[in-house]
Amino acid sequence: MTTERFDETHMAAAIELAWGGLGRVEPNPMVGCLLVRDGRVIGRGYHEVYGQGHAEVNALADCAEAGQDPRGATAYVTLEPCCHQGKTPPCADALIAAGITRVVVAVVDPFEQVAGGGIERLRSAGIEVVTGVAVDAATEQLAAYLKRVRTGRPWVIAKWAMSIDGRIATASGQSQWITGASARREVHALRGRVDAIAVGMGTVVADDPLLTARPSGPRTLHRIIFAQTRVPALDRQLIQTATESPVWLIAGPQLSEADLRPLIDQGVDIVRCESVDPAAMIDEGLQRLGSKENPAGQPLTNLMIEGGGKLLGSFAAAGQIDECHVYIGGKLIGGQSAPGPVGDPGFAELTQSPSFQINQIDSFDNDVRIVYRRQN
Amino acid sequence: MTTERFDETHMAAAIELAWGGLGRVEPNPMVGCLLVRDGRVIGRGYHEVYGQGHAEVNALADCAEAGQDPRGATAYVTLEPCCHQGKTPPCADALIAAGITRVVVAVVDPFEQVAGGGIERLRSAGIEVVTGVAVDAATEQLAAYLKRVRTGRPWVIAKWAMSIDGRIATASGQSQWITGASARREVHALRGRVDAIAVGMGTVVADDPLLTARPSGPRTLHRIIFAQTRVPALDRQLIQTATESPVWLIAGPQLSEADLRPLIDQGVDIVRCESVDPAAMIDEGLQRLGSKENPAGQPLTNLMIEGGGKLLGSFAAAGQIDECHVYIGGKLIGGQSAPGPVGDPGFAELTQSPSFQINQIDSFDNDVRIVYRRQN
Repeated sequence: MTTERFDETHMAAAIELAWGGLGRVEPNPMVGCLLVRDGRVIGRGYHEVYGQGHAEVNALADCAEAGQDPRGATAYVTLEPCCHQGKTPPCADALIAAGITRVVVAVVDPFEQVAGGGIERLRSAGIEVVTGVAVDAATEQLAAYLKRVRTGRPWVIAKWAMSIDGRIATASGQSQWITGASARREVHALRGRVDAIAVGMGTVVADDPLLTARPSGPRTLHRIIFAQTRVPALDRQLIQTATESPVWLIAGPQLSEADLRPLIDQGVDIVRCESVDPAAMIDEGLQRLGSKENPAGQPLTNLMIEGGGKLLGSFAAAGQIDECHVYIGGKLIGGQSAPGPVGDPGFAELTQSPSFQINQIDSFDNDVRIVYRRQN
Repeated sequence: MTTERFDETHMAAAIELAWGGLGRVEPNPMVGCLLVRDGRVIGRGYHEVYGQGHAEVNALADCAEAGQDPRGATAYVTLEPCCHQGKTPPCADALIAAGITRVVVAVVDPFEQVAGGGIERLRSAGIEVVTGVAVDAATEQLAAYLKRVRTGRPWVIAKWAMSIDGRIATASGQSQWITGASARREVHALRGRVDAIAVGMGTVVADDPLLTARPSGPRTLHRIIFAQTRVPALDRQLIQTATESPVWLIAGPQLSEADLRPLIDQGVDIVRCESVDPAAMIDEGLQRLGSKENPAGQPLTNLMIEGGGKLLGSFAAAGQIDECHVYIGGKLIGGQSAPGPVGDPGFAELTQSPSFQINQIDSFDNDVRIVYRRQN
């Protein structure tokens, strides 16, 4: 008896399971797995923590623990099972060994060590493999991983808080607080699950932010400063705390060794860029952050940008904003010179300006959050 | 048997009924009425059209039509029954004559010809009167009427469409279309139910708007231009169509008779102001619009402002924006000089900037609309 009629439903459940790994498995992908036999779910698993068991292995363990027999079952996996020895043995082999006879996959893994190889290995073992089930929902869930694997750059989440008339501060520079405590808690939760938060030098000078997640999340949060032509003063909070929690400076070519040496002495890691143009420097920086050639030796998957307007303007110009978390607080600020969230250069033609799709709308007390994702 | 336990529920139903008059009864208030006896609803009515039956009379007629006896019933009325002869006879008298023994009122009418007089007349006739039931919801519904009666000024609804980063146009001035067809239909529906739409001279020059509701709504839509120091060219669409649908010019004292004469010849009505300061001129203009001393000879209840930024800035400075309909389209525009919706002077201190509360959140295709109301 096949389970085809319920493929979409079972895959939706596997996707739901996979979310449990958000912020804990990167740079690995979030993956969920459901084992179903004779219409009954006999095992559930997801990739919980980086370096530990993958979704398929955890689902098989769950099945065994419940005293169920996986032989003849269908496995629903949100991403193609791996076929390479990584931190753990290949999942395709585990499914074969367990006697699974049908595997339903949402997304084929573009990672070069898999890239269809997992499916091939399953089929060679006589297992029926179906792909593309609930592919849109799974692709949305895996967007950050897929961008990094395909383009070598992290997924960029721009976050800003603005008034109902789109201002992030008054003309005199006041910006605390446009949104309330609940919205700020949400921002800290987001900080806690990303790999890094970046700001530009204008924000370091004006706001002297600490950029920590309070409370801290499951990941080591890297704090990144994009510095094109000037460096932070040593008394800035970011520099003062660089030995406690990593701080990286993405440095433009105009900066000299003498500019950077005092920062290095304070524990700041330097990522050198060759590009002079701001948008080109963003792109070069992102390539470094998304590769192992960064101070962590591990690619970053999710990068959050907290401003200011100049940095966001450069990210927009580079075409590198993937997701926006727009918080709208119930204040009206007005004034022509009160700044908006995204600065120069901007888009002179509406037809050139990037389109974003609503992903989620929430409200927190009197604040609204709209999550947008870039339209492809 | 009293119905006290269900007072709130019945009043909520009366409020729901009252919405049927929106856009049709102004400058009268929307009012709903429910007749309840022995726990059963025996009559429903609301004020449907200006000049015709009030809610109480319509509910009594509904009761009679259904062959029900109103004697001994409780009447739930969202606004105090009137006690004066207007276009129709006093509703308090109609309730007394019908043998109603209990009247539950949400809001006491501040209108000087009522102002507690209706309640007094009911009590003098031996009827039990309770006030303040569901008063918050009814006050919210009656906000425009209450503002006009209490302050002599119309309720001001500011509407704008902006990008996800709070821009209403690109730096080069492109603004069509930030939002989609469904959102624009909503704007036309709002235009159709207000008394007037106002714009500033900057918008007349830049956009040459027609400011009609398409399709037209239940009301005569007055199109208003705030003109402080300059007047529209005669070829503007608003001027060209002034004989088809009313156009009023709120004229600052700097404008001469010679400036205005050609407009008058085209059918434009002039409302002269003495104030030079933009915010003071807004206030003076609103007092005229909210009184019978305007070209319609009838106070305006709802005034919608469609921009531009300068006019909205002056309205904000005058403290005269009561409601905002903020449309957010899924575009990112960026650029420091791309305009925001609300211009100068703005609020330099966040503590001075007005607070608005979320009233409603909707989405239309990929556009979000947030309706805000000013916090008192």
